[in-house]
Amino acid sequence: MIETENITDVVETYLAAWNERVPERRRALVAEVFADDATYVDPARSGTGADGIDAMIAGAQEQHPGVELILAGAPDHHGAHVRFTWHLRPAGTDTVAMIGHDYASVAPDGRLKDVVGFVEVPEATAA
Amino acid sequence: MIETENITDVVETYLAAWNERVPERRRALVAEVFADDATYVDPARSGTGADGIDAMIAGAQEQHPGVELILAGAPDHHGAHVRFTWHLRPAGTDTVAMIGHDYASVAPDGRLKDVVGFVEVPEATAA
Repeated sequence: MIETENITDVVETYLAAWNERVPERRRALVAEVFADDATYVDPARSGTGADGIDAMIAGAQEQHPGVELILAGAPDHHGAHVRFTWHLRPAGTDTVAMIGHDYASVAPDGRLKDVVGFVEVPEATAA
Repeated sequence: MIETENITDVVETYLAAWNERVPERRRALVAEVFADDATYVDPARSGTGADGIDAMIAGAQEQHPGVELILAGAPDHHGAHVRFTWHLRPAGTDTVAMIGHDYASVAPDGRLKDVVGFVEVPEATAA
């Protein structure tokens, strides 16, 4: 059982990895937050293992310069499972350009094992 | 890749299984919607395989008589993954007593393989 405080730290580190554009720092955050055999998949991309996931995030950063992900509300978790919502916004602004809903299983060492991401465009933006 | 129309049918059948209180009908719906080696877990309960999941749902129905689950919005899915939100309400009313957020992986035959449920109490009810 992962404690609420710890799971929030894990999720914050996960989002920090997506936001970190200095390669060696990003790679360190990926290793810190993803289990060695972790998988990630969302509608646009997927990756396996720390190297694969780091390369995947690097590709996403190249496609989407100048944005950042922030945690939207406390993660919801029980047992070895967590879900959380994030907002993507142009860095330094309050404009929510995309909403993500991520689900992950948590390895015994507290790192994320399998992450499935879902995304939606905010209603105001979609209109 | 599961089509949107099909995944909605699968999710509706899943909720129908939770709502069906005639044992043989419920068992048939469970077999229809869950893969043979399916797992289910939420903060209150867990089950494995059609027999285990059917017994788990039966227990939940005994604990919570007179309620029903309804789908709240279209399921969100990509590849072999789906998430959806449901509302629990006293049967035949519009009172949302609980909100559920379920994530599932979808087996190649279109049935649900691993389901993880999260629940929250609506803000108005919690206040």
